[in-house]
Amino acid sequence: MDLNSYIDHTLLRPDCALSDVNELCKEAAQHGFAAVCIPPYFVSHAAHLLREQSVRVSTVIGFPMGYASTPSKVEEIKRAIDEGAEEIDAVVNLCAVKSGQWNYVSNDIDSMTTAAHLKGKKIKIILETSLLDETEIRKLVELCLQAKADYLKTSTGINGKASLEAVRLLKELAGGKARVKASGGIRTRWDAEQYLQAGADRIGSSAGVAIVS
Amino acid sequence: MDLNSYIDHTLLRPDCALSDVNELCKEAAQHGFAAVCIPPYFVSHAAHLLREQSVRVSTVIGFPMGYASTPSKVEEIKRAIDEGAEEIDAVVNLCAVKSGQWNYVSNDIDSMTTAAHLKGKKIKIILETSLLDETEIRKLVELCLQAKADYLKTSTGINGKASLEAVRLLKELAGGKARVKASGGIRTRWDAEQYLQAGADRIGSSAGVAIVS
Repeated sequence: MDLNSYIDHTLLRPDCALSDVNELCKEAAQHGFAAVCIPPYFVSHAAHLLREQSVRVSTVIGFPMGYASTPSKVEEIKRAIDEGAEEIDAVVNLCAVKSGQWNYVSNDIDSMTTAAHLKGKKIKIILETSLLDETEIRKLVELCLQAKADYLKTSTGINGKASLEAVRLLKELAGGKARVKASGGIRTRWDAEQYLQAGADRIGSSAGVAIVS
Repeated sequence: MDLNSYIDHTLLRPDCALSDVNELCKEAAQHGFAAVCIPPYFVSHAAHLLREQSVRVSTVIGFPMGYASTPSKVEEIKRAIDEGAEEIDAVVNLCAVKSGQWNYVSNDIDSMTTAAHLKGKKIKIILETSLLDETEIRKLVELCLQAKADYLKTSTGINGKASLEAVRLLKELAGGKARVKASGGIRTRWDAEQYLQAGADRIGSSAGVAIVS
């Protein structure tokens, strides 16, 4: 199985440097990964490095807490796209979910998705499934599908990790209307294959090279 | 020693709910803490709850990664102040620090500090000292003092913790021109007293009640 084209090669440490991003982009190009997933700060640099490659640049918004305000998340999305991001991985507001403020949650997802789609870019909504119960997951997926988000993403990898159960549930609930990205704790080829068999369309990992080697 | 007035009673979990914030504010008022430190999402609610108390509302910006763009961090600061925040705890861009982009780092700190000061509010710059070497800390403190930031804060508590050495260094470098907030891993009265003796002017902890009990 050719795993390479499923992988978002990921580097999101708070203290990563330009040299780390250079290395990540080089590896991504070499291995033909789907995308690099990097901090907003490095988007323009990575977009420049990868301008002649098929590797897409993706970045994270409201990461990893999700509780920044909608306007600041939208500002971040617009800027990232302006600087060359083609995919946006944005965290839902879990505080609002846990407070039962579903109208806020819905508006937050709508606004972020609209900001990406207005510029023709893809958005992956990070749900952080390991902090949610099944009712919350079902409701969130419903809102993501209403907003026409492109991907349902399991986890930040910081506050939660993927599980095969979560991927199977998201895949079922998506009903072909959104794709599924599994991320958080996926370290080996065996892990990655399990997640793809469970229905993941994309794998986020900081161990991309180890996975395909 | 009366520790209460030194404590920022802190709740920053990604999945905290309105009911958790209610409890936090109640405890802070009861114990006469300096402030509550909460997600941006809950600022207006906490400001309402604490409107007749001396407890200040503080919130976190660019938390905990620091690598969101300056405009999105500034947007977040303005909104938080609008909604009732009196103190702003904002994370520096460590990616820029580690990439040697000191001009960016300086502009980021300046812009955030200006946004807070324009409205007469205090700003605490979170340095994440445990990820920095002493040269980087010295340079960052210099930039914070130039910008006239009110507090130098050691850590996010997520990506790094406080140390007594870091607090002593920050206190010395501040030279009375900025205060020092220690946060991350401070759990007991013993811890808190050690940090205050080392020079901390404020203690951030999610264990505020345990510390003073």
